[in-house]
Amino acid sequence: MSDLPAEFALIARHFRPLAGPGALELGDDAAVFAPPAGRELVVAADAMVAGVHFLPDDPPDLVGRKLLRTNLSDLAAMAAVPLGYLMTVSAPRATPDAWFAGFAAGLAADQAEFGVSLLGGDTTSTPGPVSLSLTILGHVAPNAALRRAGAREGDGLWVSGCIGDGALGLLAARGEIADTDGYLAGRYRLPRPRLALGQAVAGIAHAGLDVSDGLVQDTGHLCRAGGVGAVIEAASVPLSAAARRADRLALCLTGGDDYELLLAVPPGRTAALLAAAARAGVPVSRIGGFHAGPPRVIVRAADGTDMPFAAGGWSHFG
Amino acid sequence: MSDLPAEFALIARHFRPLAGPGALELGDDAAVFAPPAGRELVVAADAMVAGVHFLPDDPPDLVGRKLLRTNLSDLAAMAAVPLGYLMTVSAPRATPDAWFAGFAAGLAADQAEFGVSLLGGDTTSTPGPVSLSLTILGHVAPNAALRRAGAREGDGLWVSGCIGDGALGLLAARGEIADTDGYLAGRYRLPRPRLALGQAVAGIAHAGLDVSDGLVQDTGHLCRAGGVGAVIEAASVPLSAAARRADRLALCLTGGDDYELLLAVPPGRTAALLAAAARAGVPVSRIGGFHAGPPRVIVRAADGTDMPFAAGGWSHFG
Repeated sequence: MSDLPAEFALIARHFRPLAGPGALELGDDAAVFAPPAGRELVVAADAMVAGVHFLPDDPPDLVGRKLLRTNLSDLAAMAAVPLGYLMTVSAPRATPDAWFAGFAAGLAADQAEFGVSLLGGDTTSTPGPVSLSLTILGHVAPNAALRRAGAREGDGLWVSGCIGDGALGLLAARGEIADTDGYLAGRYRLPRPRLALGQAVAGIAHAGLDVSDGLVQDTGHLCRAGGVGAVIEAASVPLSAAARRADRLALCLTGGDDYELLLAVPPGRTAALLAAAARAGVPVSRIGGFHAGPPRVIVRAADGTDMPFAAGGWSHFG
Repeated sequence: MSDLPAEFALIARHFRPLAGPGALELGDDAAVFAPPAGRELVVAADAMVAGVHFLPDDPPDLVGRKLLRTNLSDLAAMAAVPLGYLMTVSAPRATPDAWFAGFAAGLAADQAEFGVSLLGGDTTSTPGPVSLSLTILGHVAPNAALRRAGAREGDGLWVSGCIGDGALGLLAARGEIADTDGYLAGRYRLPRPRLALGQAVAGIAHAGLDVSDGLVQDTGHLCRAGGVGAVIEAASVPLSAAARRADRLALCLTGGDDYELLLAVPPGRTAALLAAAARAGVPVSRIGGFHAGPPRVIVRAADGTDMPFAAGGWSHFG
């Protein structure tokens, strides 16, 4: 009875090296740790399924990093500081050990980059595709979390980085559009959570979220939460050189997987926003504004006409 | 753009009613709450996959309750008090709305019973079987968590409730053994997390865990963590009337899915243990003891011979 079954050996080999303080070496029923005194906790969870959220033959290190980074992006959107994470991995029994090794190596790289560690989780078999979940824990000063509700009439609509690379990157990763230098596929596979920017704009932005469902749909979330309307000036939406070459504006505006921050900022705080963005080292662009009215998003083309959209973004059901 | 896509409607209809304080109506990127002052946090995560951890045609309310209860059992094993949970649900696009309704109703029932609420999560489609994950958050007084490490030579090996009903219940649910009153199948589908007992034995037991991988294998975990050997007296292992009728002792000892607490208790604290168990309203049985020696589990039959076991319990890989 002293031999460890294969499941425990797999956890010991690949996941225990990721365990941080409080994880009890992943050898107990749960992790135990003292939360940072005087701070609120911020927690979020995301699932990723092979064939839905990543391609089955994506490099496993990038799968691990994307899983962690999409969750870190949720913390960024709340202006929170990352603390640690729990993870469940359900994989087919025939999954090669090298897949787990690569997956864990990707997580290890990003743990070092973002200052987080593994607190616990579960590893199981599945007759279906690889199914992953990650729960991220972070913290924020009391009442300082950035929320979706709060956009007001007159606020500017701002976005970080570039929009559309993620959606184009999926097409590129599938070989459906040109991507000679691999830039777009890389942007799909490896989001950049805007943690420094999120923490820097707490107290400046009235509201915010991270763009995961698509720019138009996520702007709609800010509108509904704030009870205001919004206009997006399509020509102001920042596009990378690769996205401009791809010339698929509608896809860029609705495609999702951007993981940039979308912010409602009052005009009087524009200078503070730009200073905060400069400190965080992240470009921000004003792409429109909020107005009184029903919670509807209008996308205005360069010629002044409204662009029609059949659907605002990605939905898993219906 | 003001129409909610189907995914958000599904979440609003079934999961938002489960959201508690801090969940921000499931409408933000993360939940925010102040942790209980002066307490340590206890966190654990488990995954459940249709066809592996539950049967695809199991009633969805019982699937939801089992998902929550297996995680509550991890808190029980750490002597922790439940706080809330995050959940990810990956389901085929064709999953009927009634399945989600039943799943949520089961969670609602257990939220009321155990005093927890939903903090956040994610709902996605999958081309494979329903894949669920749940991360539970709880709290405990500083340094009061019950750990797997700590069993010492001379400690008694104690277990709560009955052993084997879970493993037999899986056979019963599959129609492979008789179960006229449905008792065994019910025990497989609906674990009873021993929260009150776990909290009551903190400071009494040297070590403990919940029996999920099988009694023999989980005793092995206590042995390895404590650096001691253990003897289980098979005739002392508590069996339900249904399990005695089934007459499958080896399966009961190795089958898993019991979710009872397994404790190492020094002889001088036996009276305190029995009093704590009585307060918690849970029977406990002494089924063996720990001794100096290699971390090996011996199961002694009623005739004094050692029972051989090919494998100590369930493993997902290898």
